[in-house]
Amino acid sequence: MFTRVKSAVSSFMGGIMAVSSINNNERSGGSDLPLKYPYMRPKFLGLSPDEIECSADHIVRPILILKETRRLPWATGYAEVINAGKSALNEDQACCEVLLVKKKPIGSLTPRKMSTSRRRSSLPNSVGMRMWENDEAEGLIFHYWALFDGHAGSGAAVVASRLLHRHIVEQLQGVLEVLSNLASLPPTVFCDEPNHQPFPCTHRALNRAASLHGATGAPGSPCTPPTRFFVEKKIHHESLVIGALENAFKIMDAQIEREKSIYNISGGCTVLVVVFLLGKLFVANAGDSRAIIIRNGEIIPMSTEFTPESERQRLQFLGFMQPHLLGGEFTHLEFPRRVQRKEVGKKMLYRDFTMTGWAYKTIEDEDLKFPLIYGEGKKARVMATIGVTRGLGDHDLKVHDSNIYIKPFLCCFPEVKVYNLTQYEHGADDVLVMGTDGLWDVLSNEEVAETVISFLANCDPDDLHRYKMAAQDLVMRARGVLRNQGWRIDNDRLGSGDDISVYIIPLMFGNRQP
Amino acid sequence: MFTRVKSAVSSFMGGIMAVSSINNNERSGGSDLPLKYPYMRPKFLGLSPDEIECSADHIVRPILILKETRRLPWATGYAEVINAGKSALNEDQACCEVLLVKKKPIGSLTPRKMSTSRRRSSLPNSVGMRMWENDEAEGLIFHYWALFDGHAGSGAAVVASRLLHRHIVEQLQGVLEVLSNLASLPPTVFCDEPNHQPFPCTHRALNRAASLHGATGAPGSPCTPPTRFFVEKKIHHESLVIGALENAFKIMDAQIEREKSIYNISGGCTVLVVVFLLGKLFVANAGDSRAIIIRNGEIIPMSTEFTPESERQRLQFLGFMQPHLLGGEFTHLEFPRRVQRKEVGKKMLYRDFTMTGWAYKTIEDEDLKFPLIYGEGKKARVMATIGVTRGLGDHDLKVHDSNIYIKPFLCCFPEVKVYNLTQYEHGADDVLVMGTDGLWDVLSNEEVAETVISFLANCDPDDLHRYKMAAQDLVMRARGVLRNQGWRIDNDRLGSGDDISVYIIPLMFGNRQP
Repeated sequence: MFTRVKSAVSSFMGGIMAVSSINNNERSGGSDLPLKYPYMRPKFLGLSPDEIECSADHIVRPILILKETRRLPWATGYAEVINAGKSALNEDQACCEVLLVKKKPIGSLTPRKMSTSRRRSSLPNSVGMRMWENDEAEGLIFHYWALFDGHAGSGAAVVASRLLHRHIVEQLQGVLEVLSNLASLPPTVFCDEPNHQPFPCTHRALNRAASLHGATGAPGSPCTPPTRFFVEKKIHHESLVIGALENAFKIMDAQIEREKSIYNISGGCTVLVVVFLLGKLFVANAGDSRAIIIRNGEIIPMSTEFTPESERQRLQFLGFMQPHLLGGEFTHLEFPRRVQRKEVGKKMLYRDFTMTGWAYKTIEDEDLKFPLIYGEGKKARVMATIGVTRGLGDHDLKVHDSNIYIKPFLCCFPEVKVYNLTQYEHGADDVLVMGTDGLWDVLSNEEVAETVISFLANCDPDDLHRYKMAAQDLVMRARGVLRNQGWRIDNDRLGSGDDISVYIIPLMFGNRQP
Repeated sequence: MFTRVKSAVSSFMGGIMAVSSINNNERSGGSDLPLKYPYMRPKFLGLSPDEIECSADHIVRPILILKETRRLPWATGYAEVINAGKSALNEDQACCEVLLVKKKPIGSLTPRKMSTSRRRSSLPNSVGMRMWENDEAEGLIFHYWALFDGHAGSGAAVVASRLLHRHIVEQLQGVLEVLSNLASLPPTVFCDEPNHQPFPCTHRALNRAASLHGATGAPGSPCTPPTRFFVEKKIHHESLVIGALENAFKIMDAQIEREKSIYNISGGCTVLVVVFLLGKLFVANAGDSRAIIIRNGEIIPMSTEFTPESERQRLQFLGFMQPHLLGGEFTHLEFPRRVQRKEVGKKMLYRDFTMTGWAYKTIEDEDLKFPLIYGEGKKARVMATIGVTRGLGDHDLKVHDSNIYIKPFLCCFPEVKVYNLTQYEHGADDVLVMGTDGLWDVLSNEEVAETVISFLANCDPDDLHRYKMAAQDLVMRARGVLRNQGWRIDNDRLGSGDDISVYIIPLMFGNRQP
């Protein structure tokens, strides 16, 4: 995330920074508290401490890919590169796992992760559609790919990359038995008995809803008012997976907030997660990373970015409804630029939370406050501070030199999109591309698709290394080469000076039967 | 709007109601205050009082179209039919005008409407793209089509059909000189001098924005902080028209609220407006009417419906942030059905404003409150009361037998979509169809398009009556015929028992040069 948190950008030096600047102070963020987890690169890269140190060379900017001996599920390709000097550490993080959701053991809340051997068994040719592990007492297998783009420190991104999937496992555990019974719809209600058996205890008779007029009784009115309507919404299994992902993000964020009193968990991070479960891809996004599917040359967007511009109306609405959150310093109205005192009484363009168009208003003293949303494109900011509006962490983030918290405007809730893999036949060149904003800031969806398609076309379709090499090629295109004291890409455009992380996930393995 | 406000549906009698029930009490809504405007049918129909009385026959349900001598701009087709008995009066209203926005005369706020002769001159063959009336000191001409679907009385719909276009004229008047200068972008700021000349008084130097860090000064900090960034958003003319429409809706709603203390303005209404201005169609929608363009057989949706389901998250967010609006009777959480007291302690599906998926929660006493949003599809309601979430009026609407107002949840702000007519060549069969929900409840977009396309294909392309006849045919298809004590359409489906109003607007006249 490049220059996305102004207060964090203290060391931008034209893209050049000595490796020695990765000192202990930056690693700890100046806090006296211990780190919850040390700074790291994605576990699956298997880097030694020395290699991690070398990877942070802001002059060379080496592109990291998987070692020959290592392989991700579905032969997924991954590549990353550090920024050009905006921060000593690479604030992107990544995690990829094949996970097993087991029935919750009595007296234990700890989810189980698959053993190495089990993970190995999930490679392309062996797992595919095998979702249920019969030998593990009906455990549910799912695949998990995640990207975290940190800002104002690497702490939140590291913690989330280590823990978010565990919260997802735990949330899925709560609906495991419901998900295992695809033959009937999830029960609206069930008894939560000590043995955690979610056998539905509703009967048709119980499902008879109260009449609508029942709504208007006193809060303590009889719980079985005269039955006049039969109304019950049918919820499908897919919605439970979406709900599990949404709540896992919330619980992860709450954990960071809770633990920052005992650990040094610096900054915040965006999150982009892909889960493959029950034949579907669930793409959960909170921030400005992006996922697209490239199928038969066609681009299918699988996420939308959350930025001050895309979320303007939500943020203005919040500021309008809870003006104390603006600390007397900001106005929820948007203006095309800062209003000056001498303009009071003149007419200026503005828009309120109810508007997508603009109108003129007579400027009053109140309008001299700074606009809650200000700037355009990558320069748009919430309260002059941050350029994304969804993510984890940032509980301490305040407007510079003030007591105004950003957090209620920045929230942790993802948008989840679903792609049914089983509905289509996928060829070897059909992939899902996930990338942090470092990729998408310099390459459009079309350029990314064209790059990937043309690279894969030149590879042997049976070579499982092709996705890894395509990811490397893609990061190379977005980073560019160092020329005339700057990183340059095609047509002499500026390359990305941000951290860049990319997955290329082939979709055909999702279709394969065991 | 059929059974959309439960408290208003007192007289549903299986589609049969005697005409004599149109009594004075229903017309006045039981209020002692005078009506602002008497009940009416659209002015352009030119009906006599007797004809209005006959049009309200709930057994015959005559389809009304324009008389031979009358014609709407662009040879627009219009047809309507009353409901099957849910209310004595047709609560739909319509308005269509060609309007002239003139420079605001000093000392007067009254907008000018075009004289009859001028309106007549705007018929297909003469006006087309002529937007500026040079002989009227640079007045701006625009075309206006509107549908209003009332509920709980006809008052708000009648008032809005008489006045909304005047507010639009007035809002456009405020930006008239800016819109007249398409060569340069609208000025960010201008002096509002007594002669209402919006000459921009900004200079490039003035446009230098305050630095972002300026935001963090005290509210009374110097108005010209050190300039570090030059940031000014460019606003285009189109955005000013959108803003004018948005504010016109707001002002219309405020007028209804203000005047209900001196006039009897019963109920509320949805609004669907199409404005043709500067070569573009602006479609503003607040409610559950719908507009689609049919171009070369392809359907282009030009509005989205605002219902408890489509606006669930906004409404839940409002209820969560301002719980006093729920009056202690409702919970902002959604459940698939009403929770019963004996279910406290069990687990039930729910979703919060942050979720699109569902999860289980342990039921607490608080969850026994009625859900803010409840029901599915046409039966979904806000606070068990109303099935639309945008519209004008309804300031007195409360939850039955309570002091809880619906209004903050029901709001007046439209969504505006734009279609650039000049970007395409349009043939005689390319049309925009506007209809109240009575049409769309029984016919899909595809069925409407197929009906219109096949009707027009059988008409002489040069016959200007073809759109009127197509509108009549479309309403006929949606109403159906009375058979076995019910209105039936194709495949023995039920026809619409609601009021139905439809415009069919040919688009080719928007392309024609004068």
